[in-house]
Amino acid sequence: MSQLFQPIAAAKGDAGETHTFAGLKLDSGETLSPVIIAWKTYGTLNAEKSNAFLLCHALTGDQYAAEAHPVTGKPGWWASMVGPGLPIDTNRFHVICVNVIGGCMGSSGPHAVNASTGKPYGLSFPVITIRDMVRAQAMLLDHLGIASLFCAAGGSMGGMQVLQWAASYPERVFAALPLATAARHSAQNIAFHEVGRQAIMADPDWAGGDYIAQGTNPKKGLAVARMAAHITYLSEAALHRKFGRNLQNREAVSYAFDADFQVESYLRHQGLSFVDRFDANAYLYITRAMDYFDLAADYDGVLANAFKGAATRFCVASFTSDWLFPTAESKKIVHALNAAGANVSFVEFATDKGHDAFLLDMPEMFQTLRGFIDAAAVARGL
Amino acid sequence: MSQLFQPIAAAKGDAGETHTFAGLKLDSGETLSPVIIAWKTYGTLNAEKSNAFLLCHALTGDQYAAEAHPVTGKPGWWASMVGPGLPIDTNRFHVICVNVIGGCMGSSGPHAVNASTGKPYGLSFPVITIRDMVRAQAMLLDHLGIASLFCAAGGSMGGMQVLQWAASYPERVFAALPLATAARHSAQNIAFHEVGRQAIMADPDWAGGDYIAQGTNPKKGLAVARMAAHITYLSEAALHRKFGRNLQNREAVSYAFDADFQVESYLRHQGLSFVDRFDANAYLYITRAMDYFDLAADYDGVLANAFKGAATRFCVASFTSDWLFPTAESKKIVHALNAAGANVSFVEFATDKGHDAFLLDMPEMFQTLRGFIDAAAVARGL
Repeated sequence: MSQLFQPIAAAKGDAGETHTFAGLKLDSGETLSPVIIAWKTYGTLNAEKSNAFLLCHALTGDQYAAEAHPVTGKPGWWASMVGPGLPIDTNRFHVICVNVIGGCMGSSGPHAVNASTGKPYGLSFPVITIRDMVRAQAMLLDHLGIASLFCAAGGSMGGMQVLQWAASYPERVFAALPLATAARHSAQNIAFHEVGRQAIMADPDWAGGDYIAQGTNPKKGLAVARMAAHITYLSEAALHRKFGRNLQNREAVSYAFDADFQVESYLRHQGLSFVDRFDANAYLYITRAMDYFDLAADYDGVLANAFKGAATRFCVASFTSDWLFPTAESKKIVHALNAAGANVSFVEFATDKGHDAFLLDMPEMFQTLRGFIDAAAVARGL
Repeated sequence: MSQLFQPIAAAKGDAGETHTFAGLKLDSGETLSPVIIAWKTYGTLNAEKSNAFLLCHALTGDQYAAEAHPVTGKPGWWASMVGPGLPIDTNRFHVICVNVIGGCMGSSGPHAVNASTGKPYGLSFPVITIRDMVRAQAMLLDHLGIASLFCAAGGSMGGMQVLQWAASYPERVFAALPLATAARHSAQNIAFHEVGRQAIMADPDWAGGDYIAQGTNPKKGLAVARMAAHITYLSEAALHRKFGRNLQNREAVSYAFDADFQVESYLRHQGLSFVDRFDANAYLYITRAMDYFDLAADYDGVLANAFKGAATRFCVASFTSDWLFPTAESKKIVHALNAAGANVSFVEFATDKGHDAFLLDMPEMFQTLRGFIDAAAVARGL
């Protein structure tokens, strides 16, 4: 079974905390039952339970925001942002990061065993939405006795969850930090996701989604999906700066189909390393959830209505070279928040690093977010 | 054998003209022998042989520039530009369009039978370059007794060939029209090509490139490659305008992995229809040729040196929403041409249609190119 994807962290016993809930009614009309939720926390919840800081992870992220990843050994995805003395200061805040449902790091997802059949769900797992992910997180907060979050923060798909939190549970979110995100997934972004899904489904080892039971694993298809997606996380300028047309360990081109260029070698590595930590079906489900995201659609097509009367204070941030979630998308969010009379600040960070900039060392971003968070903490009485 | 790719046009006897040459020395150092070249012509060569107009096709194009494609039945790729009374006027010019070597519509390529083994080349076909494609075209012109072209024109990879023509054979090109192109392939473009190649090679039916002999065909992998590439040929704005988040023949999302969105259905169709007219190995070889293209590298890294002393008159054109070959790349060509003292005009067309705009109905482009061509024809005494 070594070639099969496993919820590796869970198997190792370091998935963080997990809890099994009876069930969750989903947007599709189906009920997921039971629902396992896995999460990690950093920092201490205060007696008033007023300092909870929810981190929402992106498509291929997970609950390991501020510590070494149990599979890759690499630092957590927001280790530069979350920790003692860092902008999201674990000396002050109780940080909670939840593996989304549909994911593959301990929470219920298509890799999990369906209790009613004793077999892995595969494609019989219900299709979930961003709102379903947020519902599951709210259910967890209920379980933890946390009535309201001090802050919800996240980038990309994490930002979508933050927006959904503010819309679905405005009274439960004191401050919100949606970064490098959009209130709806664009046609181009759906197109890129569809390429990834088709790459996975084209792999015979995908076996109609039943690969765990079949003893196969569509690693090649998943690697291609990751490679295509990874290009969209960077910018042309960053690729040019990092790689240009530099050759990989050679003086001249090989006149063959080896990875002659560094950028090819880099992309192949991105694809190959990804398959060791991610489940192909989870990739299908989570991309689908992002494609379905269109927050205004649930509010008569008017995005401002999603935020009507919200007391939440927002800081919306975008990055100049992000062509996956360009600044124009953030501005639509800001316009809607302003139209709803919400308390919102907006910042566009100048960088050539593309969409993934929100995950990187960016002193200007750290300073700005620290300012927003500190001011909100004062307002919250923390 | 019905599922195998065949040089269908050749099999039908309408590949146009073909000629078998003894051999061609390639940039790799290898010699391709023999070399079959397939081409189509439109309009009549004048007695002075001074009105030859070479069209260079793009990655997935072929010699069917101005007539229905023999496989798809669709109009030729430049049917709006080439014909009687059109900007490239077949009443005045003898238009020649050559299937590139490495291609799959009659010219020698990896699908062809290697005369020395009696088996299809597959990956034993030598890796070719843009300069090799142009060398083959020059060899054909020698055979046809055409000493010099009135004009060479093409977009994308066709534009690369036009630039290479002007650099390799300046005395043989009176006018040159490189559209939507670059003098070197960028890191991001290499990355997208690498995704496509990996998608093909991940398909077990690719069989190490030996699929024709094995009786398989990596259609799924090739379709994924085409889908990924197709996104890069359009613009975000065009995708939004054409499809937005519109659903495909349904009122609500399916909560499944069907093509819910029109853009998914469109992309799937692009992938599926492509595999009926293109050979997977040809896709590998031609993308590789584009990746290798770096015209300045052959001239001490100074692009202007490639055009030193050129008497060719150039019209370089780009398209505002083309993010695959953005205007900045065309400007580099123009700067080099100016530095070389060449006769060059430059135009950037405003369009939201992305890279493929050069193939589309664009009255402003037709008018500009007609003006350039007519003026060049007067100067040529045509």
